[in-house]
Amino acid sequence: MTTQTVQIREVGLRDGLQSIQRVLPTAQKIEWLRAEYAAGVREIELGSFVPARLLPQLADTGALLDYAKRELPGLFASVLVPNLRGAEAAIAGGADLMILPLSASALHSQANLRKSPDEVVAELARIRAARDAAGSRTLIEGGVGTAFGCTLQGRVEPAEVLRLMQALLDAGADRVSLADTVGFADPRAVRELCEAARKIAGERFCCGHFHDTRGLALANVCAALQAGVTRFDASLAGIGGCPHAPGASGNAATEDLAFMLASMGCETGVDLNALLALRRRVAGWLEGEPLHGSVWRAGLPKTMDVRSA
Amino acid sequence: MTTQTVQIREVGLRDGLQSIQRVLPTAQKIEWLRAEYAAGVREIELGSFVPARLLPQLADTGALLDYAKRELPGLFASVLVPNLRGAEAAIAGGADLMILPLSASALHSQANLRKSPDEVVAELARIRAARDAAGSRTLIEGGVGTAFGCTLQGRVEPAEVLRLMQALLDAGADRVSLADTVGFADPRAVRELCEAARKIAGERFCCGHFHDTRGLALANVCAALQAGVTRFDASLAGIGGCPHAPGASGNAATEDLAFMLASMGCETGVDLNALLALRRRVAGWLEGEPLHGSVWRAGLPKTMDVRSA
Repeated sequence: MTTQTVQIREVGLRDGLQSIQRVLPTAQKIEWLRAEYAAGVREIELGSFVPARLLPQLADTGALLDYAKRELPGLFASVLVPNLRGAEAAIAGGADLMILPLSASALHSQANLRKSPDEVVAELARIRAARDAAGSRTLIEGGVGTAFGCTLQGRVEPAEVLRLMQALLDAGADRVSLADTVGFADPRAVRELCEAARKIAGERFCCGHFHDTRGLALANVCAALQAGVTRFDASLAGIGGCPHAPGASGNAATEDLAFMLASMGCETGVDLNALLALRRRVAGWLEGEPLHGSVWRAGLPKTMDVRSA
Repeated sequence: MTTQTVQIREVGLRDGLQSIQRVLPTAQKIEWLRAEYAAGVREIELGSFVPARLLPQLADTGALLDYAKRELPGLFASVLVPNLRGAEAAIAGGADLMILPLSASALHSQANLRKSPDEVVAELARIRAARDAAGSRTLIEGGVGTAFGCTLQGRVEPAEVLRLMQALLDAGADRVSLADTVGFADPRAVRELCEAARKIAGERFCCGHFHDTRGLALANVCAALQAGVTRFDASLAGIGGCPHAPGASGNAATEDLAFMLASMGCETGVDLNALLALRRRVAGWLEGEPLHGSVWRAGLPKTMDVRSA
């Protein structure tokens, strides 16, 4: 555990807001985006290119992408795409990265995407072809979800997760990632699966996404760090969750993750005080919604060497 | 991270209840004790031998110790003792272990114990002499608190923590432990200090005590596990905190710790469903008090191989 650079990817505007019924106005999302960029966060998932009737909360994803590309130089802007149609919007909008989610659980895949995992692999191949035909530089990430188990199916075999990861790479994914969609992961399972994923994908295994449903998100991040993972998804105030995980208590909170990493001597480029100030504003906008996290309540420790971005 | 046995020491009846104003009736404490014993927990800190005017919540510590020794065979019953007088009560009551807390932070030591750390070391020597003179088998643990920093003093040097640990051993402690009294620890600091403590004390470095003030208790437990620590303090429903840590959100929750360890394949002897049932009863008794933890809300994952004690 020597000093290292770790990337935090904010997913609150996508994974967080999609789990909340209220629709945050575009102006507030832009304020969130600007403030988090100003706090030093350089990778942000802006939304999903899904039909607005399915997720009205994310209907302004295109507008946010336009704004980010025009006004926030150096921001690595990603979007979630469920299929080729979404990918075409991401390519047209000039996203830096599009993430195609795949559920390693066959049951969750049907419930969530109405496709089998292997049909999602085939969709990724079509997306890759479209991207290359368009001469686009938008990177493609295959995100393997329910990688540590599934509320519907129960156990998900690591061998199946790794098979699907390899299939995504073979189909043309530039990157792959692992997600504990429902909060079943534990530090031992994370370390073992991440080590195996590194053997398959090397540096192309780019990110870990850990829900905090059972309080283990940060312990799981530590385990993944030890397996060589250096990018993590997190959501401001821990908002998020999975409709198929009752009682789910959201994502790793961005501010807690940034605090932990800074405490451990990792470089994230994040200004913790600015991030905590933004959390207070977002908490005001989301009053009444279930928010999470610990550092906002306790404050930073007296021993903390707080760096500015 | 191979399969291993890990001991959970319940400290809710001491560290937890001392932080709550209401006084739990002895009959409820005994119910708690019996149910947690029935759930497979075999080490419990019953209370503190401090003057009842200072901590009326723990005035029945002697009665609980009598009960435990008479009715709960195989329970390893510990008590906190602030000084020789408390130690004499622990010896007379036949405690299996008495824990003398020492604050490595000189400022916290004065605020909390009105003694310097080295005066506490001298007190431990007197306790050892009294124990030996009595022919008692009560073990003595020197618990080094504020080991990762202090809300009053800020930084606490690891070298000072290790010096005091060595001094406690030299003064006759059978065991020593480390506590993050105020929730400043991070996984990197935990691993480094625990590795250094193991070099000094070997197996006599027996326990880690991590507060969850900033959400890192379980990540810190994982780091300590990797450094070879195999016993952890925890408090049912995470109750507890330090009067000198505003915003403190309590201890590692026993049920979350037991869940994490079981998920990782560690043997704890704990029946998770029985522990969660007890948590519901205790939460009823403590209605209105700040409780913590995640697993009680989310439930056990579908993948979990739940063992009975």
